[in-house]
Amino acid sequence: MPLDLVIIGGGPAGITAAVYAARKKMSLAVVAKEIGGQAAWSSNVENYTGFQVITGPELVKKFSDHLSQYKFEMREGVEATLVERAGSNFQVKLSDGQALAAKSVIIASGKRPRPLNVPGEREFRGRGVAYCATCDGPLFAGKTVAVVGGGNSALDAALQMERIAAKVYLINLAPALTGDPVMSEKLVGLPKVEIMNSAKITEIFGDQFVRGLKIDRAGRIEALALEGIFVEIGLTPNSALVDCVSKNELGEIEIDCAARTSCPGLFAAGDVTAVPSKQIIIAAGDGAKAALSAFTYLNTRGG
Amino acid sequence: MPLDLVIIGGGPAGITAAVYAARKKMSLAVVAKEIGGQAAWSSNVENYTGFQVITGPELVKKFSDHLSQYKFEMREGVEATLVERAGSNFQVKLSDGQALAAKSVIIASGKRPRPLNVPGEREFRGRGVAYCATCDGPLFAGKTVAVVGGGNSALDAALQMERIAAKVYLINLAPALTGDPVMSEKLVGLPKVEIMNSAKITEIFGDQFVRGLKIDRAGRIEALALEGIFVEIGLTPNSALVDCVSKNELGEIEIDCAARTSCPGLFAAGDVTAVPSKQIIIAAGDGAKAALSAFTYLNTRGG
Repeated sequence: MPLDLVIIGGGPAGITAAVYAARKKMSLAVVAKEIGGQAAWSSNVENYTGFQVITGPELVKKFSDHLSQYKFEMREGVEATLVERAGSNFQVKLSDGQALAAKSVIIASGKRPRPLNVPGEREFRGRGVAYCATCDGPLFAGKTVAVVGGGNSALDAALQMERIAAKVYLINLAPALTGDPVMSEKLVGLPKVEIMNSAKITEIFGDQFVRGLKIDRAGRIEALALEGIFVEIGLTPNSALVDCVSKNELGEIEIDCAARTSCPGLFAAGDVTAVPSKQIIIAAGDGAKAALSAFTYLNTRGG
Repeated sequence: MPLDLVIIGGGPAGITAAVYAARKKMSLAVVAKEIGGQAAWSSNVENYTGFQVITGPELVKKFSDHLSQYKFEMREGVEATLVERAGSNFQVKLSDGQALAAKSVIIASGKRPRPLNVPGEREFRGRGVAYCATCDGPLFAGKTVAVVGGGNSALDAALQMERIAAKVYLINLAPALTGDPVMSEKLVGLPKVEIMNSAKITEIFGDQFVRGLKIDRAGRIEALALEGIFVEIGLTPNSALVDCVSKNELGEIEIDCAARTSCPGLFAAGDVTAVPSKQIIIAAGDGAKAALSAFTYLNTRGG
């Protein structure tokens, strides 16, 4: 017997969708690595430089209060790896080898940091290679670090690390920084910060931990000795688990004004979508839309 | 010198848009009959039978706290009557005879109760004819009233008035009630409630106040003596002020996933849009989208 709805994701979009779906008494499973936990929130809330009408912690508190009133299947600590059509329903495959059958699916799986894809990056992940200065910055107090990137998130990370680290290399592939001038102007005058433009990282090396990296500047290879590397070259949507929907050139899932994708029965909300602004209140609003659109879909499809 | 943005509406969509736009330091005017006041909220919050993750009063409190931090032009107590292109900008005409020039406009003007359009309705508005049982119900304690309509909002109003009034006629144009069975079943057994299906109201009459109405049932005209009439036959979007955008068959403004209308520079959010679900958190999310889309529009259009 398929469920009415499987929701993939435990961030603001997924949780809001779950609250609305539970209120509509849909049979429901939520698949999420973590619900409302720090990991789910830190990159959205703390790093985001824009304004939050509702803060993450406020919303999490409300959500978990509400969610605790409802009965539904919670698959925490598990990831959805594949969503595919199975007749008129969907099959959702999970990282623990199990699968869920559902009449409708909401994808609210968010985004993750884009990797550099250079030798050593995967090996030293968690041993010097990091993707969130707010989360992991304090581990590198007094050390020499690199921040990789030239956009707003890289500039923000460099400004944060300048206050914590002994030295900060800002390593930028492009010939100039691309983030907001208000941030790059601050960085330029700081004695601890060394900006390296037109610099391409070719390798990360170390022993137990990162000891340095190699960069290519106009064909000349240099090695920099350092202990931490913050990769801040953007985010990539967690949309690879589904094939049967339209996506934009960034891989983000296209939705309409009611959070419907190009595939009937499949809905999406939050940072995984093509909605240009990534904001908690926008994700929450679209999570509500997705649940209510799924409810309408179930009532009109028959079966 | 045109403003960057004019926001029309003081509900959840308009206020959220104003907060986001003010944070982006856009030059800004908000045109609203009332900001966060009871009138702006009651029909959304109190009558809405669905679930609110964020309650209206909570949101209003947050919004007014935030809004008070910013400087912008507030046109309270005024209505926007016309939005039209003026070269590459827009002109917004106001009910006080003034006009505003703006590079971009957000329409968040909401919905209003649909009128019956029968003789006497306009004359006795506020003198017995009402459109919100939650707001005005207590004025009719111990009196005989009619609720007009057969859908969920009419059934909800009838259930509310049954506890307050001496007698409640439920006057329904259709041959049967169309609202949720869970509500209509409750109403059927109540001794104070008289349900009249296939009944068309032809006239409202009275002296200083409403004294009764006339109905046509299968060609036979009857007069009912009563003192209050709650018209609950649905809502109509306040979209007549703008012509240059695509609307659906209900007159709701079509938007895409980023709150953009078919007219570049013109954005819409909240109950005036074709988004099927009317919810505070959805209106707030789309208000944020509209402001951030307007910001992007201004940065990319030049001028």
